[in-house]
Amino acid sequence: MESKFAELKNRLAEVTDLTAAASVLNWDQATYMPPGGGPARGRQLATLSSLAQDKFVDPEIGKLLDELQPWAEAKGYDSDEAALIRKTRRDYDRAVKVPTDWVARFSAHSAGAYQAWTEARPANDFKSVADNLKKTLDLSREFADFFPGYEHIADPLIDGPDPGMKASDIRRVFSELREQLVPIVKKITDQKEADDSPLRKKYPEEKQLAFGLQVANEFGYDLERGRQDKTHHPFCTTFSIGDVRITTRVKEKYLADALFSTLHEAGHAMYEQGVNPDYEASPLAGGVSSGVHESQSRTWENVVGRSRGFWEHYYPQLKKVFPAQLKGVGLDKFYRAINKVERSLIRTDADEVTYNLHVMLRFDLELQMLEGKLEIKDMPEAWHDRYKNDLGIQAPSDVNGALQDVHWYGGLIGGAFQGYTLGNIMSALFYDAALKAHPQIPKQIGKGEYNTLHTWLRTNLYTHGSKYTPNELIQRISGGPLRIEPYIRYLKTKYGELYKL
Amino acid sequence: MESKFAELKNRLAEVTDLTAAASVLNWDQATYMPPGGGPARGRQLATLSSLAQDKFVDPEIGKLLDELQPWAEAKGYDSDEAALIRKTRRDYDRAVKVPTDWVARFSAHSAGAYQAWTEARPANDFKSVADNLKKTLDLSREFADFFPGYEHIADPLIDGPDPGMKASDIRRVFSELREQLVPIVKKITDQKEADDSPLRKKYPEEKQLAFGLQVANEFGYDLERGRQDKTHHPFCTTFSIGDVRITTRVKEKYLADALFSTLHEAGHAMYEQGVNPDYEASPLAGGVSSGVHESQSRTWENVVGRSRGFWEHYYPQLKKVFPAQLKGVGLDKFYRAINKVERSLIRTDADEVTYNLHVMLRFDLELQMLEGKLEIKDMPEAWHDRYKNDLGIQAPSDVNGALQDVHWYGGLIGGAFQGYTLGNIMSALFYDAALKAHPQIPKQIGKGEYNTLHTWLRTNLYTHGSKYTPNELIQRISGGPLRIEPYIRYLKTKYGELYKL
Repeated sequence: MESKFAELKNRLAEVTDLTAAASVLNWDQATYMPPGGGPARGRQLATLSSLAQDKFVDPEIGKLLDELQPWAEAKGYDSDEAALIRKTRRDYDRAVKVPTDWVARFSAHSAGAYQAWTEARPANDFKSVADNLKKTLDLSREFADFFPGYEHIADPLIDGPDPGMKASDIRRVFSELREQLVPIVKKITDQKEADDSPLRKKYPEEKQLAFGLQVANEFGYDLERGRQDKTHHPFCTTFSIGDVRITTRVKEKYLADALFSTLHEAGHAMYEQGVNPDYEASPLAGGVSSGVHESQSRTWENVVGRSRGFWEHYYPQLKKVFPAQLKGVGLDKFYRAINKVERSLIRTDADEVTYNLHVMLRFDLELQMLEGKLEIKDMPEAWHDRYKNDLGIQAPSDVNGALQDVHWYGGLIGGAFQGYTLGNIMSALFYDAALKAHPQIPKQIGKGEYNTLHTWLRTNLYTHGSKYTPNELIQRISGGPLRIEPYIRYLKTKYGELYKL
Repeated sequence: MESKFAELKNRLAEVTDLTAAASVLNWDQATYMPPGGGPARGRQLATLSSLAQDKFVDPEIGKLLDELQPWAEAKGYDSDEAALIRKTRRDYDRAVKVPTDWVARFSAHSAGAYQAWTEARPANDFKSVADNLKKTLDLSREFADFFPGYEHIADPLIDGPDPGMKASDIRRVFSELREQLVPIVKKITDQKEADDSPLRKKYPEEKQLAFGLQVANEFGYDLERGRQDKTHHPFCTTFSIGDVRITTRVKEKYLADALFSTLHEAGHAMYEQGVNPDYEASPLAGGVSSGVHESQSRTWENVVGRSRGFWEHYYPQLKKVFPAQLKGVGLDKFYRAINKVERSLIRTDADEVTYNLHVMLRFDLELQMLEGKLEIKDMPEAWHDRYKNDLGIQAPSDVNGALQDVHWYGGLIGGAFQGYTLGNIMSALFYDAALKAHPQIPKQIGKGEYNTLHTWLRTNLYTHGSKYTPNELIQRISGGPLRIEPYIRYLKTKYGELYKL
């Protein structure tokens, strides 16, 4: 059995190596590739991913999983062997249940749909993409039907990015959250707007990058096993546990963009760097879900990086880096500016309080479309209605409405958005557990010390990689199921100090 | 047949995509990879190259080649179809004749041999690597014997980097060249040494890089399909015809290093960028041999880049970039400095005249070792003797002697060096043909115009990629076989103006 297990691991390492190679090629394309490299790069990436897929769905892997399962289970649920078989079995079953014919049809369709969207968005022409979106919806339903026995048609779609999470559970949690959030947002936005003009002076790019990276490094992002580069859209990418990179977008005239996106991506990266090195080149390496991943980016970006304690330590340093720009701007004013809450139309620009409303309305629209209760042609209006209702504003067009996000135009409908808000909820849940174990953490943050928090997160979360499901992790760490109380408490405490609530 | 041909091309594109992906990973490792990425990167590269190899030696490719050969040949020798079958057949036969067992043994051995060399060189400890080198020699002979019927045991080894070139031909050409060169070197080095101290002031790195890249760009190196990055050792790497990159090493205190290595690598890159785009993702893409490749790096680095005309145009610009460093240094003095000839021990630092002596003695030692006429244990002394004889100097130790180059310690013995000097010889041969077609080229170089030369090289050489063998190219371009006269004439003319010959 040991030798069969070794063979399985070798085969999985080969698959991981191919996907890691594709990640390097993607990173290169986003960072340094000259324009002429585009056409060949597309073909190279297609070759790598199709080879990785072929190698993974090899029936020999299914046979090894069957043979190894009893042996691994005998080692106990918490053993790495059992976890590897469990996780691989889950991924394998998901992969083999989807016919190659569907994969080919979807990939041909999505390339065209994405291209059409890039043209439709600037032209505010939803009609031109409606048929594509209809096809995407059909393909999404087809995909769900490869996994019969689901409770909700969205479940198989959610199960990819957020394994084990169900539409019904998320719906319940989201509706509780929405009920709490809508009045908070109303109360805040009825008050005087915070002034963020100090953030909108001219901040030289290199200094912004250096400051953000220094903070990320002090959080615990290991630069011997990572690096930062500039891209149009910030992201984090993993080539191995020893090589987890972040990218940052810098706006010369908006200090908050590069800084907080660096801390955000560093949060993702610290999660990936913190995985048990024994899991290298296996399906256990890497964060377990989009929600849990987002919980860590949000912890370091928001819970830590937008806290008052954090800036008590760093603001004097920031003023030294940008003395002219921040002259006469006190800590209070700066802290209010970076936590400005406002009704806005663009999800990616939204503040911590309103952000979830953007996400949850998209999630609801996804479910309604999948359920057949909302037709594609009516979706843009439903979008506008929800913005009016939840955020009290309406977009002048679909450009900042239903054409806003790439997700449905480059991928499937279903499972695309919930991870963002699940992550926010979990960030407070996990941070709460960390504070219960180490009440001194906020005080340490005020002194620029992150070792206790980072070590606790590494030990209780990061090291496990994909060993446990998100729900298992939530139970292990917080002693109960997913719940919004800690997150609501966090928001009410923080924003109760900034605004009258 | 058309559909079989398309299938062959698809299979070859898959192989090319895998090797291109490996090239991206190698480039990343040399440029931006953080140290922690090393172990996984080694594994990822091994996976990619072994998959590429598996895909290429697939018997289905052999079958397709058999079936397609008559069909392709009927289209005529000069057709792209016939060329693709010819070139692929050649590569395929070379690949399938080498048993996987040998490949595994060699790759295990060479990793250890390379590691041992990195330790032996600084310790001047040839003895510690002698057994490894003996094994390398055995493996090199074994390799040759997979190709029975050779005329000289080095032929199958040379045939990889320089297809169709034979030890006997190279030996003949090299011995003529050596006979001519040794007295020239003696005559020059008996005269007063050129003063290159102006090159050894402090030159800020970024300005060096920018100047070199500007010149490369003006030569015709297309930056929409290429870029420059910094590495420890300069190289050129191809990911596709649309993405050919160069890297440069910069020494703050030696102007000539970055500048001429940039022009050198840009020469390689222009060759690769100039290949017929129809050959993309096939064995016809890319330069045909190490010798022909080197002819182009040497053309742009030396024949053009170290010529007087070139500097008549560029020296005023260089002086503007480095006014303090070049104050009081006239064009004559600068031109002498960049063409300083000296007896030296290190091949990679050698000037245009002595360089070939370094190369040819290594080639001769390779042949003697392979012939069994020189034992490994006696090789370091033979090395010293040849330096004394050909260059009139002797290294104080093996550090700058037999331990100097990585080639035999990371690869095979045989075929490692001849390309450098073949390239020098061909650079003059091809340049001569260009001048016959366009006598105005030297005048244009004096005005910073390269279009005529670049277009001629692209049309007569670059566009063919690997369609023709090196000997076919030499015949097509120069109307005869490989010969040294143009090169000797070039050296005698140029150095006859700088020194009394």
